[in-house]
Amino acid sequence: MAVYTDVPESDLDAFIAQYDVGSVLSYKGIAEGIENTNYVLHTQTGQFILTLYERRVHKKDLPFFLGLMEHAAAKGVSCPVPVRGRDGEAMRNLCGRPAALVTFLEGIWPHDPTPGHCEQLGRAMANLHTAAEDFDLRRNNDLSVAGWRTLFGPLAAKANRMRKGWRGAIKNELDALEESWPRNLPEGVIHGDLFPDNVFFLDRRLSGLIDFYFACNDFLAYDLAVALNSWCFDAGGSYLRGHAQALFEGYSRVREPRREEIAAMPVLARGAGLRFVLTRLQDWNEQPSLARPASKDPLEYWARVEFHQSIGDAAGYGLA
Amino acid sequence: MAVYTDVPESDLDAFIAQYDVGSVLSYKGIAEGIENTNYVLHTQTGQFILTLYERRVHKKDLPFFLGLMEHAAAKGVSCPVPVRGRDGEAMRNLCGRPAALVTFLEGIWPHDPTPGHCEQLGRAMANLHTAAEDFDLRRNNDLSVAGWRTLFGPLAAKANRMRKGWRGAIKNELDALEESWPRNLPEGVIHGDLFPDNVFFLDRRLSGLIDFYFACNDFLAYDLAVALNSWCFDAGGSYLRGHAQALFEGYSRVREPRREEIAAMPVLARGAGLRFVLTRLQDWNEQPSLARPASKDPLEYWARVEFHQSIGDAAGYGLA
Repeated sequence: MAVYTDVPESDLDAFIAQYDVGSVLSYKGIAEGIENTNYVLHTQTGQFILTLYERRVHKKDLPFFLGLMEHAAAKGVSCPVPVRGRDGEAMRNLCGRPAALVTFLEGIWPHDPTPGHCEQLGRAMANLHTAAEDFDLRRNNDLSVAGWRTLFGPLAAKANRMRKGWRGAIKNELDALEESWPRNLPEGVIHGDLFPDNVFFLDRRLSGLIDFYFACNDFLAYDLAVALNSWCFDAGGSYLRGHAQALFEGYSRVREPRREEIAAMPVLARGAGLRFVLTRLQDWNEQPSLARPASKDPLEYWARVEFHQSIGDAAGYGLA
Repeated sequence: MAVYTDVPESDLDAFIAQYDVGSVLSYKGIAEGIENTNYVLHTQTGQFILTLYERRVHKKDLPFFLGLMEHAAAKGVSCPVPVRGRDGEAMRNLCGRPAALVTFLEGIWPHDPTPGHCEQLGRAMANLHTAAEDFDLRRNNDLSVAGWRTLFGPLAAKANRMRKGWRGAIKNELDALEESWPRNLPEGVIHGDLFPDNVFFLDRRLSGLIDFYFACNDFLAYDLAVALNSWCFDAGGSYLRGHAQALFEGYSRVREPRREEIAAMPVLARGAGLRFVLTRLQDWNEQPSLARPASKDPLEYWARVEFHQSIGDAAGYGLA
């Protein structure tokens, strides 16, 4: 929760003058998003989200992210759409940062997801996977198995201070995942971060997906593994079998996962859990205590990893 | 910049159901305001600001603040208007906090105020003072001279660590202000916090005043002294005589200040400067470094105090 870059109105006016959206009526920095600076922007023609890209999002990746949103939206996926300026460009600079204007998506993320939410999420995820089949840009997932050991390096000592012996446990997990990570699952463009706060609902119906800034090319089933971690456990950390079944049922209505994708779920879910342990460890060390959302505790996701370690095969999740 | 209280959608839905504003379409926590949690809220009927009152704002004072906004708005002052629920109440509880819904005011605060902005601010301030003449609630200013020594007590040691000898300098200033503080200036309801970020403009015209949560009964000229501090110095700390003259000219167009109000400006301005030194010191100690807006440095306002100490009489400000 942060506004990293304060935008003076004169810079904003010059920025907005490059679009056909009328003049600025108001803009307020919003607390969502720990990666970027976001403003809710009202202009004479409507409402927008203005994003300035900070740290983890690199300028070279923006054509992929913005292009994907445009491509997916054109195929009926409900998501924010980048607004192009009069010069045809969707991406420009503001206050020394790459920046883009996207349409405002109404909706509320579910703080307490039900199986019904999960079923709709599954369908929307599969729709995105399908819509992106002919998207012609590529971006490797730098937060997948090949990147985790490097990411962990500078965090190892801190992990051990947070929990005795944790460094060794994470190293063992890295060894195990590098050894057992699948090699031949169906690949495509995934969202990569489909947590509940990136999925909006209106009146119990899914109204859209947001925050495409971890999207990349990877196993399609990895998106399911992320959602298994983030939608299918209760606040106390207990696995919610009915939520997971609904997620996979919804997904299957649009794209039937192959048998080997389902079979790989325990290892993919361990990996997805570990990915969020590592990035949360990184954030935890960089952010002051007051700015830490309680929900972003790295240990919360380590408990997920330990749960997935205990799962022998997909039947252990209630997925057959 | 903070969202102190995360509001789950189920609590929000129950809260909003008590108003005639339709159902919730979206809500986003905004980074403005270091005192309260604020959400930009869209419902089927429009846009609102939802505020949950944290620390410095006490529930017993809310009828004063909300009543003042309603009273002033009814007399033509442009400001957010509290929305009353079906039960007639503007104030209720949400997530264990006092909370209220107010109308959304379009506008942008001036990051780099001009004399033109100051002139309009002066007029709006005098309009507020005049509009509130028959407002029948009272609230003492607990952040005026009688409260400063108590406020400083727990901060003294920290002040000294921040700047060598500062504790003694502030104590001397407290002594001087308690001795010389005026006693018989015209009183009324003041805003108390008319910094640029609480004054919105659209297309160079003042569109409204926000954030009435320091409003109180005090010398009317104290509001001018706060604005003298917050609008009439450049980023380097140099006094801007033309800005101050425009501020007082604008004010005089609506309400002519008495000679003794102008004469008291050096001491009132010292006091107003010290008030923000003290509250910023308090915030500085409570907030982690990343959450500190650079502009909220207590030493910035101590430099103001030292400037005002050097002013012999109002002519020193260019005010005659």
